[in-house]
Amino acid sequence: MSGKANAIIAQSGGPTAVINSSACGVIQEAINCGKIGKVFGSENGILGVLKEDIFDITAEKPQTIDALKRTPAAAIGSCRYKLKSLDKSRADYERIIDVFKAHDIHYFFYCGGNDSMDTADKVNKLAAEMKYELICVGVPKTIDNDLAFTDHCPGYGSVAKYVATCAMNAGRDTEALYTTDTCSILEVMGRNAGWIAAATGLARRERQDAPHLIYLPESPFTFEQLIRDVRETLKEFKRVFIVCGEGLRDEKGQYITADSGKLGTDSFGHVQLGGIAETLKAVIEKEVGIKTRFNKPGTNQRSAMHFASFTDVNEAYMVGIAAVRMAMQNVSGKMITLVRQAGAKYICTTGTATLSDVANGEKKVPREYINKEGNGVTSAMLDYVRPLVMGEAAVTIGNDGLPVYMRFEKYFVAKKLPAYM
Amino acid sequence: MSGKANAIIAQSGGPTAVINSSACGVIQEAINCGKIGKVFGSENGILGVLKEDIFDITAEKPQTIDALKRTPAAAIGSCRYKLKSLDKSRADYERIIDVFKAHDIHYFFYCGGNDSMDTADKVNKLAAEMKYELICVGVPKTIDNDLAFTDHCPGYGSVAKYVATCAMNAGRDTEALYTTDTCSILEVMGRNAGWIAAATGLARRERQDAPHLIYLPESPFTFEQLIRDVRETLKEFKRVFIVCGEGLRDEKGQYITADSGKLGTDSFGHVQLGGIAETLKAVIEKEVGIKTRFNKPGTNQRSAMHFASFTDVNEAYMVGIAAVRMAMQNVSGKMITLVRQAGAKYICTTGTATLSDVANGEKKVPREYINKEGNGVTSAMLDYVRPLVMGEAAVTIGNDGLPVYMRFEKYFVAKKLPAYM
Repeated sequence: MSGKANAIIAQSGGPTAVINSSACGVIQEAINCGKIGKVFGSENGILGVLKEDIFDITAEKPQTIDALKRTPAAAIGSCRYKLKSLDKSRADYERIIDVFKAHDIHYFFYCGGNDSMDTADKVNKLAAEMKYELICVGVPKTIDNDLAFTDHCPGYGSVAKYVATCAMNAGRDTEALYTTDTCSILEVMGRNAGWIAAATGLARRERQDAPHLIYLPESPFTFEQLIRDVRETLKEFKRVFIVCGEGLRDEKGQYITADSGKLGTDSFGHVQLGGIAETLKAVIEKEVGIKTRFNKPGTNQRSAMHFASFTDVNEAYMVGIAAVRMAMQNVSGKMITLVRQAGAKYICTTGTATLSDVANGEKKVPREYINKEGNGVTSAMLDYVRPLVMGEAAVTIGNDGLPVYMRFEKYFVAKKLPAYM
Repeated sequence: MSGKANAIIAQSGGPTAVINSSACGVIQEAINCGKIGKVFGSENGILGVLKEDIFDITAEKPQTIDALKRTPAAAIGSCRYKLKSLDKSRADYERIIDVFKAHDIHYFFYCGGNDSMDTADKVNKLAAEMKYELICVGVPKTIDNDLAFTDHCPGYGSVAKYVATCAMNAGRDTEALYTTDTCSILEVMGRNAGWIAAATGLARRERQDAPHLIYLPESPFTFEQLIRDVRETLKEFKRVFIVCGEGLRDEKGQYITADSGKLGTDSFGHVQLGGIAETLKAVIEKEVGIKTRFNKPGTNQRSAMHFASFTDVNEAYMVGIAAVRMAMQNVSGKMITLVRQAGAKYICTTGTATLSDVANGEKKVPREYINKEGNGVTSAMLDYVRPLVMGEAAVTIGNDGLPVYMRFEKYFVAKKLPAYM
C-alpha cells in the first residue's frame, strides 16, 4: 500500500467480554504503525459500512481508546446482519467497496466468528476482482470457541472463568441447603458446541464439588439418562448440580427445546433456543420428585469484564496487534489465530489461517474431552481450558464501587454516497 | 455466666455471600474472648440442634476458620425448617434446651432473617421459663434487606453490587446490538421487598445506561404500564433494559406469576415464585413485537463472593464480633443491628434490637425511594445503597485461576440424647 491509506474496523455477532480488547489492539497499533491515516469505526458491523455510518476513532481521546481494553460488549456496535453469497448479494459487496473507495479505506479489520470471516473473505475476493487495493484481516472472536484453525478464541477464556465461578458459587449455595434432596441447574450458552458448559468442569476440584453433571450438545441427550444420573448423584451427595448447554440435542440431532414462536429465529436463520433449563427442571421435579431451581446468566456470562480472564484480555489485545502487523506486510485474506506451543508451560503466540477455511470450519468439543458416560468432561478438557482462565483482568472501579466503562464520542464522517437502500 | 460454658452457632434460611463472614466474626471473637469453652456448629440451622448434629469448630484449623470470611453460602449448613409457636412446637423448643444442657451450651448465636429471630426469641423465652442460663443473640443476615430496626442487612451490599454490575454489563451487551429495537430483562431476587431490584439503579450513571425501567414488588404492576414504558423507552433509545423483582404484584396485591406446581411452596409456606421474566418476555414480544431475552442470575446473585462488597464483608464480620461482645455482657434476646451515623460521610456502627420486635417487623422500600411513575428509583434510594457496595472483597484465587473456598472438617461430637423423631 502506498501513502497513508485509511483503515476501518468492524465488530460482528454476539458481544464478548474482550472483543473491545481486540479492537483496542487494532486501533492502537494502527495509530502507532505510522503507515495508516485515519482509523474508522463501522457502526454496527458491516451495516455501518453499507449505510456509511462511519466514525473517526482517531479523533477519540487516547484514554477512551485505552479504556476499550477494559470495557465489555462491542463499543463500535455489532450486528447480526449476514450477507449472502457473492451471486445473491453482489450489490451489497460492491457497495462495501464503493464506500471503502469513497473514504480511501484500504485496510479492513473484521472482528467476529465464522459468518464474519465469510463476509471478510468475500469482500477480499471482490476487491481483487475489482482491482481495488484492499487488505482484509479477520480478528477472531466468539465465546463459543467453535472457530477452526485456532487453538481457542478470544472471549472464550473469560466466559469459561465466569461460568466455572458461577458453578463454584451456586454449588456452595446448593450445598448449604442440603437438608432435603435438591437440584440446581446452570444453563450456559453454546448453541452447537459445548465448550462453555465443558469449562465448568474446572469448578469440580473435589468429587463432591459442583457441577456433578455436565451435558453438552456434542453428546446425544436423553431424559432417561438425565433421570438415572440425577438419582445416582443424589444417592452419593443428597444434592445434584447440573450444567447444561442451551443447545442439547437428542439422538437424532434434534434440539431438545426450541422456541418456535414467531421471534424464534435470528436474522442468520439460527433457531433461538431457550427453555432447556425449564424443561430439565420440569422433568426432574416430575420424575425424581425433588425441588429444582435454575440459574440462567444469559448475556451476563459474555459481558462480565469485572471478572474477565487476564490471559484472555491480553490474548485478545495481542490478536488485534498481530492483525495490524500482518496488514502492514500486505497480507490479505487471513485471520489471526492463537497458537499454543507444545510443552507443559502454557505459551501462546499468534499464527494465521485462510479466511475461507475458517468460514467453512467448525470446532466442536472432541470425544476425548467428554467422559464415556456423556455427562461430564475428562482431564484432557480441563488441561486444555485451565490456562485460558488464569489471572484477573484489572477493571477500573469508579468512586461508586462499580466498574467504569468507556463509550466513543462517535465523530461521524460526512456521507459521500447515496443512501443505502 | 460462670466458668467456661460452650457456645453454638447456627445459620438459617437462604445463603448470602457474607453469612460466613459473620460466622467468622462470631467464632474468632468467641475463641479470643477467653470466656467461652468450645464453639460448636449446628449443622443445617436449628435442625442440627434438634438432631444433635453438632460439630466442634474449635477443633478446626485456624486458617479454615479465617477462610470463612471469604467463602460464600453457609459453611455450617443452613435449613428452611421453621418452628411453630411455643404452644404448637413446645416439644421442639424443649428438645433444643435439652441438647444445650447435654453439651453445656449457654450461648446461642443464630444467624438469619425474621423467621430465625422468631425462633431465637422463643428459645430465649423458654430458657428463661425453664430457668436455664442461656444467652441468645441474633445475627442479621438476608440479601432481601427487609429486616426492621437495622439500617441494612449484611448480605445486601454484596448482592446490590452484583446485580448493579450485571445490569451494567448486560446493558452494554444490549446496547452493542441495537440495530433493531430490542429488549433485555434482568430478573433479580426479592419476594416481597424490592431492595435488590432497586439497587440496580446504581448502574444508571447516564440516562441512556441500563436499567431504563425497574419494577419493584412495592409498586402495583400492570401490563398496560409495562407496554407503555417499553414503547416510550424504545422511542428514546431503540433498546430497553428492564429489571424486575421476582415478586411483582398487581393492584390487588396478587403475585403476577406464581408457580402453582406441587413443589411450588417451600416448607415455610412461602409461595415459590418464578417465571416473571418469562411472562414479561412473552407479553413484550406479543404486544410490542420486539425480540426480548432475559437473564436470571438466580442463586449466583447471593453467592458471588468473587465480587462481593468489601464494605459488606467487613460489616458482616463486625456484626459477628459485636454479637459475642454483647453476649459477654450477659445481654440476651437481642439482635445486633447496623447503625448508619448521620452526616455526609458514611460511618456504620452496631446497635441492638429486641428479637421479638425484629421477628414481627418487615422493612420495604419506602415510597420516597421509588419514582412517581413506579418504574424506577429516586436519588434518595441511590444515596442509601451507594456506600454499601463500596470496595471489592479480597477473595483468594487458586493456581487454577478460580476462587478458593473452605469447607469444615466437621468433627461431630458424640450424641448424648435419644434420637430426634
